[in-house]
Amino acid sequence: MSYVIRIDHVAIIVDNIDHALSFWRDALGLEVTHVEDVPDQDSVVAFLSTGESELELVKPTTDDSGISRYLHKRGPGIHHICFQVDDIELSLDKLRDHGVRLINPEPVIGTGGKKIAFIHPESTHGVLIELYELTPLEPEIRLARARELADRVRAQGQVVAANVLGFLRGLRDTGIEGFFDDNGQGDIET
Amino acid sequence: MSYVIRIDHVAIIVDNIDHALSFWRDALGLEVTHVEDVPDQDSVVAFLSTGESELELVKPTTDDSGISRYLHKRGPGIHHICFQVDDIELSLDKLRDHGVRLINPEPVIGTGGKKIAFIHPESTHGVLIELYELTPLEPEIRLARARELADRVRAQGQVVAANVLGFLRGLRDTGIEGFFDDNGQGDIET
Repeated sequence: MSYVIRIDHVAIIVDNIDHALSFWRDALGLEVTHVEDVPDQDSVVAFLSTGESELELVKPTTDDSGISRYLHKRGPGIHHICFQVDDIELSLDKLRDHGVRLINPEPVIGTGGKKIAFIHPESTHGVLIELYELTPLEPEIRLARARELADRVRAQGQVVAANVLGFLRGLRDTGIEGFFDDNGQGDIET
Repeated sequence: MSYVIRIDHVAIIVDNIDHALSFWRDALGLEVTHVEDVPDQDSVVAFLSTGESELELVKPTTDDSGISRYLHKRGPGIHHICFQVDDIELSLDKLRDHGVRLINPEPVIGTGGKKIAFIHPESTHGVLIELYELTPLEPEIRLARARELADRVRAQGQVVAANVLGFLRGLRDTGIEGFFDDNGQGDIET
């Protein structure tokens, strides 16, 4: 039994990272967590943080990659949604059992043991979907990024606290007993 | 100063709700929170829950609506991303200041005081974006839905607990001091 944990990221293909950031960062106000050159995927990628998900702006750096052809054919826009699942092999088994066509029948193993697989849009009614399972190294990477971002946000005196607390309150208010013990803390203290 | 809180939902246009659910619910395993007929938007909408965001499957019910024309022109697929912001008027002011073209220069007020506004894809490099501000009635509506979903999930004996706790742990581990006091609880107890 595998389940979908959250939207990990929504990937957006852009033709110019700086122009895209002038909208997403400067006008809309999203925080940039980092910008990365990914030569083995022929792209530059900028990550922006929003709640528990990220936006991934992807700019092709060569003319003959898949995303470059996509950009030329369809123009900039949303490319795929990535969902974090708890067990990618079980998720792929279940999809296969339901006759879903997979681009990657087995997970592709990337840097740090990262496991990803794409589902063919033919089986999803036109939506390209990536599945992603947390890697052993990922918590450390994410923690470092979150700390960096928290420092920046604090330095800027922004009001992200209200956001996080509101979300936590919402979770507690769902009345899902057993997630929080008497002092409101539950298993979180480990 | 307004900020983006999270991805509220990703809207996906489908040509058949049942076929779409056979993928999203049955094969991928997302929970359906509710299905709703929305006659004033000429559509049937199914909401699926994933972490703090929803997927909204939208099926046009007439032939002459905007989403119906979109479906016929482009086929099924991702239609827009909706971000929850803390103050939609301030967000729109800031977007205007940056020369961003708005489909709704002022928020549209819907049922229960709901405030939404769309940004023109011309200014976002091809992505249709909806902004959304929590309404006074929304917390109650969401709480009721979350309770319903929690009951269903518990009844099915699923492992959502691990999901929520993992997310909370991740938040605590970011080291954002002040959000949690010494007993790990902070302002959450109000």
